[in-house]
Amino acid sequence: VKDLRPLLEPTSVAVLGASTDPAKPGSVLLRNIREGGFEGRVYAINPKADSIQGAPAHPSIGAVPEAVDLAFIVLRRELVHQALAECVAAGTRAVAIITAGFGEADEWGKQEQEKLAATIADANLLVIGPNTIGLVTMGGRHRGSFVQFPEWEDGPIGLVAQSGVFAGAVADDVMSQRRQRLGVHATIGIGNRVGVTEYDLLEALAANDNVGVLGFHLESFSDARGFLARAAEVKRHKPIVVLKSGRTPTGARAAASHTGALAADDAVVEQILAQHGIVRALDDEEFVALLKSFSYTATPAGNRLGVVTFSGAMGVVATDLATLDGLEVPAYSPDTVARIGRLLPEWQGVGNPADLWPAIDLGPRDALVEGLQAALADPGVDQVLGILLAVPNADFEGIAHAFAGVVAGAEGKPLHLVIVGSLREAWTDGLEGLRVPVHASVRLAVRSLAAAAWYAGARERVPEAALVATATPSDGGNFA
Amino acid sequence: VKDLRPLLEPTSVAVLGASTDPAKPGSVLLRNIREGGFEGRVYAINPKADSIQGAPAHPSIGAVPEAVDLAFIVLRRELVHQALAECVAAGTRAVAIITAGFGEADEWGKQEQEKLAATIADANLLVIGPNTIGLVTMGGRHRGSFVQFPEWEDGPIGLVAQSGVFAGAVADDVMSQRRQRLGVHATIGIGNRVGVTEYDLLEALAANDNVGVLGFHLESFSDARGFLARAAEVKRHKPIVVLKSGRTPTGARAAASHTGALAADDAVVEQILAQHGIVRALDDEEFVALLKSFSYTATPAGNRLGVVTFSGAMGVVATDLATLDGLEVPAYSPDTVARIGRLLPEWQGVGNPADLWPAIDLGPRDALVEGLQAALADPGVDQVLGILLAVPNADFEGIAHAFAGVVAGAEGKPLHLVIVGSLREAWTDGLEGLRVPVHASVRLAVRSLAAAAWYAGARERVPEAALVATATPSDGGNFA
Repeated sequence: VKDLRPLLEPTSVAVLGASTDPAKPGSVLLRNIREGGFEGRVYAINPKADSIQGAPAHPSIGAVPEAVDLAFIVLRRELVHQALAECVAAGTRAVAIITAGFGEADEWGKQEQEKLAATIADANLLVIGPNTIGLVTMGGRHRGSFVQFPEWEDGPIGLVAQSGVFAGAVADDVMSQRRQRLGVHATIGIGNRVGVTEYDLLEALAANDNVGVLGFHLESFSDARGFLARAAEVKRHKPIVVLKSGRTPTGARAAASHTGALAADDAVVEQILAQHGIVRALDDEEFVALLKSFSYTATPAGNRLGVVTFSGAMGVVATDLATLDGLEVPAYSPDTVARIGRLLPEWQGVGNPADLWPAIDLGPRDALVEGLQAALADPGVDQVLGILLAVPNADFEGIAHAFAGVVAGAEGKPLHLVIVGSLREAWTDGLEGLRVPVHASVRLAVRSLAAAAWYAGARERVPEAALVATATPSDGGNFA
Repeated sequence: VKDLRPLLEPTSVAVLGASTDPAKPGSVLLRNIREGGFEGRVYAINPKADSIQGAPAHPSIGAVPEAVDLAFIVLRRELVHQALAECVAAGTRAVAIITAGFGEADEWGKQEQEKLAATIADANLLVIGPNTIGLVTMGGRHRGSFVQFPEWEDGPIGLVAQSGVFAGAVADDVMSQRRQRLGVHATIGIGNRVGVTEYDLLEALAANDNVGVLGFHLESFSDARGFLARAAEVKRHKPIVVLKSGRTPTGARAAASHTGALAADDAVVEQILAQHGIVRALDDEEFVALLKSFSYTATPAGNRLGVVTFSGAMGVVATDLATLDGLEVPAYSPDTVARIGRLLPEWQGVGNPADLWPAIDLGPRDALVEGLQAALADPGVDQVLGILLAVPNADFEGIAHAFAGVVAGAEGKPLHLVIVGSLREAWTDGLEGLRVPVHASVRLAVRSLAAAAWYAGARERVPEAALVATATPSDGGNFA
């Protein structure tokens, strides 16, 4: 197992390409690192300046008075190979090659990437990139991305992406949200993977006690069999969510020009991920929803879903989607039926979903609290989906207190919510701190519940011997 | 064709069940009608009051000095049949039976619903319900729902739902949004359909010049063949989106207890909707996204999608989803490639999706405007999806002006956007009034684009003769 601490917990960083022009990418990166609370030493590398943004500047990485943990290369692509060689000579421990235009680009870029690979092959140097936006690692209090993150919520998620978007725009979006925040301990853009791969980071995140949920966004595997054999072990303790794009031939062509990735047959990917107990997200929105759900809630005991809904229509939609996604929606126990029935007109049956709209007239607080608590207490369901209507008629004082009571009584049984209506944001505020995922749609809620239940069933699954037997970390490449 | 004007454009309404207690459902409904800007005459029906909320009160509908257009029955279910009979006797033209507890409930309710049906069978009376939340019709400036709508955006959408949620919580949510507002001319909850059916409303909305897009949320069809034969004609002029839930046996059971609906085989539904050129939404979120898209954009000329993305990763996801959804993502024309290529480093190829992230360094405004304009100008694509990163690095002054320029140059070619990043809301504000749909996810964007393209191809489609031949409005029931 590689020691990735210089990359993930650097105590000193250098930025090759920082400039006196504050708009240059290297300058932006330097500023973000310094303003992001990094407590280690920071060096700007620039042949023409003594200091940049108050950081000492040196003409080359070799002139820095120490061997730094992590150097960022933010230079024109023609200068990257020389800079990398200087890092090797200077004893730099890790390098993030931000510059693009290599394996994903033209013939020159492809050949130059091979030179980069050759240069680091014999060096004891950790490299991410080229073609990466960088990384944000809370272990190092280190925000090494072009995108400035005024806020960053630390938490149990460890993220690895070939692309920059999860250390860039998606992270910017997620971290700017006031509610339902996603806690990310580390997010690493591995880019074209000339050095460090998703396998290395799988090992590092598996060993990191601060990380409890792993997410990988890949357009190809650098070593599919090795990765999956190891992932099948790691997933027994930490759920792993994979967004593998390039699923179609057209998508795969797009991936090839994005990260130089060569795609595998998607049906094979699907099958092998499933055999190894790896949760698959089908798009970026679902990826974030699944990561949030896994990081907020405990693993359910099984596959049985209880639905409590204030919209009969959305309850039907939820039941359809849950059934199509492999969840069971069983009848509630007689106790639960009796308990919910007391909230309803005598003529209304109590099914699953339990439709509680008529109970609002009898008191919205009782309907909400008692309805959800009854479902959560049912021994025949393993998770509960609540579909709430946050309309003025259904509002009441002390919604936060009511939710806290529901969660306290749930004894860890997972509860997911969908909230619809003009008071949606206010009600969601009332859930802050309770670790109840509130989803943007019934669909995302059901996908998350189904993924959790599937993971619960797959957690102890051992892949077929034949697959593991052929899985050697060195055989590399795609499934094809 | 039934004349539904008393229901959809009432000039006088009465509320049976309005009470001096302002919290009672009938009182809430009365208040919402009056505060919602209704300009006609309003009567409260209550045996014990002279006036309620300033409206004249009468002991019975028969005591009102005129035959009213529309009466709401908001009474205990035991009183509903008698009240309906009084409406018939009083010459009331339309009735909305809000009360639940009939065909969707117990044996008594089922029998009582048959009595309601028998009572109106020979009467010249339009009835929606029982078990409906009501209706909101801009033609009548009439907001007849328990949920108060301080704002309501009039627009080209006509909505019909068995459930109350589209005149209730979903409408409350949608109408409270500040951006990307959905314009709804009429939304009618038909409930258990003892009288007026989705077929009647299809006819009425087809004939209404204020309505250009039709949406139906159904858990069953009251007359599947009749509805679809007529819908196949209407859709030549107005796209029709159907959310048909109760797709699975479990979902269908839930639907049965919600609206008393009996479900058909979903594969048959799927096939017949497709044959008739009716767009199908698979969940409530998609239903709203499709209605917004159809109401915002023109019908595309064909199936070819151009993608411009500032996130390579999301471009790949979009390409996957688009391909899986039947869209073509062809190469851009040489002119477009040259035009976009000028924004990019010389080594970067221009594919479709065109990845414009590297162009941000050269000027985010040029990248955004020129990138989108180039794709929209390409004669080989019929619609464009833009995936924008609204991060501080990519922001610039005058974003609204830039967007306006893009749209002005598009000559009506549909543009859909996904915007990710902390400045998402600010950028979306910049699009107000431009009728460019901004979607919450790549998935919803692609579903909308694919639905539009599919509709373009299906618009002139005539269903198989055999289907039309057996389609008589009177044969009723489900497909089964």
